[in-house]
Amino acid sequence: MGTVYLVGAGPGAPDLLTLRAARLLGIADIVFYDALVHPEALALATRAEKVAVGKRFGKFSTAQAFINKRLVDAARKYAVVVRLKGGDPMLFGRAQEEIDALTHAHIPFEVVPGVSAALAAAAELGVSLTRRGIARSVTFVTPRVGENEVVSDWQECAARADTTALYMGAREAAGIAKELMRRGRHAEMPVAAVENASLPGARHWLGTLGTLAQLEQQQFTGPVLLLIGNVLKEQYVARRILPLERAGAA
Amino acid sequence: MGTVYLVGAGPGAPDLLTLRAARLLGIADIVFYDALVHPEALALATRAEKVAVGKRFGKFSTAQAFINKRLVDAARKYAVVVRLKGGDPMLFGRAQEEIDALTHAHIPFEVVPGVSAALAAAAELGVSLTRRGIARSVTFVTPRVGENEVVSDWQECAARADTTALYMGAREAAGIAKELMRRGRHAEMPVAAVENASLPGARHWLGTLGTLAQLEQQQFTGPVLLLIGNVLKEQYVARRILPLERAGAA
Repeated sequence: MGTVYLVGAGPGAPDLLTLRAARLLGIADIVFYDALVHPEALALATRAEKVAVGKRFGKFSTAQAFINKRLVDAARKYAVVVRLKGGDPMLFGRAQEEIDALTHAHIPFEVVPGVSAALAAAAELGVSLTRRGIARSVTFVTPRVGENEVVSDWQECAARADTTALYMGAREAAGIAKELMRRGRHAEMPVAAVENASLPGARHWLGTLGTLAQLEQQQFTGPVLLLIGNVLKEQYVARRILPLERAGAA
Repeated sequence: MGTVYLVGAGPGAPDLLTLRAARLLGIADIVFYDALVHPEALALATRAEKVAVGKRFGKFSTAQAFINKRLVDAARKYAVVVRLKGGDPMLFGRAQEEIDALTHAHIPFEVVPGVSAALAAAAELGVSLTRRGIARSVTFVTPRVGENEVVSDWQECAARADTTALYMGAREAAGIAKELMRRGRHAEMPVAAVENASLPGARHWLGTLGTLAQLEQQQFTGPVLLLIGNVLKEQYVARRILPLERAGAA
């Protein structure tokens, strides 16, 4: 029986894979990969059969139960099975459902952590998510939920954090800004949006909660991450970023 | 004039460096590194002068202003200057103070994100920080503050998140548990402690907020990360972990 490796592919750029991820891809017999995994990362799996199982909002979806079954079946046939996921498997990666299935089937597994998109976005902007005297709590949230999912009050949590990283929230930017302001966040609180963090086609905007609704006019081709908090005040942002109002007008 | 690369060394295991980090170490002229960076990671910098500037609580400390000055001076002398930091530079890495100094001195810089310790801890336990129907907000906080630092209400933020990752908090475990319970967290809420995540000497304990004070009886040799939340309920934890009460008695 083989081992299933749940591997974080990082934020997008293929050289932001870990050395361990690269080594495992090199010896993998089969790789199940997400839609957002970079082709050059996948190309490291020189001897593996490659199976796309990506879930991407509104485009293409493989049911989770089907992926779980494929992983279990593969582990009964191959020695090294890699499940390659964008970002980190344990943060909005739905790894738990696959781990539950593997555990239930008594299949050995390992998780290889990866660089999460918010950290790549912060690196690109040159803005630390924590800053002495300004921010010491960072919250990672997503407004995106599965079908029939009980929704916890993530808005309250996001409104209390010094810095908030919002995954998969750009399409609901207006509603999110409104909710956070209703819970006491100031309209002047800065927000940065980063599309395709770490990739050559990355785009950045800087605005505020008060102007965030403009983001909905943008056309996005890749995943968008929102960073919210006073660490993004203009005097702290080392990179030159397109202001949201100019981006909105373009 | 050279470029300063602020590079995340990841959680500890040297093969959890990114490919980009490894490549930059290989071409670095000089590397300034933290106390928690693994010797094997440092060994990748074959041609570089290596300078320890680690800050470690209670042990050894290089003043931040002095590190900033060394980075600026090095960039005026060398082409590739690497500042190697444990975990990710933008999450409790004090990167901002160095970025401010570099920006002020007009030194070009790049940030290379890394795998943060909480993700390595989650990977080791086989427990996702997010879980459908259980957790969709994850907060990263630290109770550790610098001198004269204004302290924001991180406890309130931590008490609102579905999952909380607490960095550098083991020494204050009792006080933290008490604060979170005072803010409405249940005494039965599970807590996992992970020491030396991703390293061969890693140790894990599983307890609850109600039993967390026992952690203060432990002797720690490495950094300890606390994970708090219902994603750590026993039925979800795939690994066998030492219960806190047994660890406390030992």
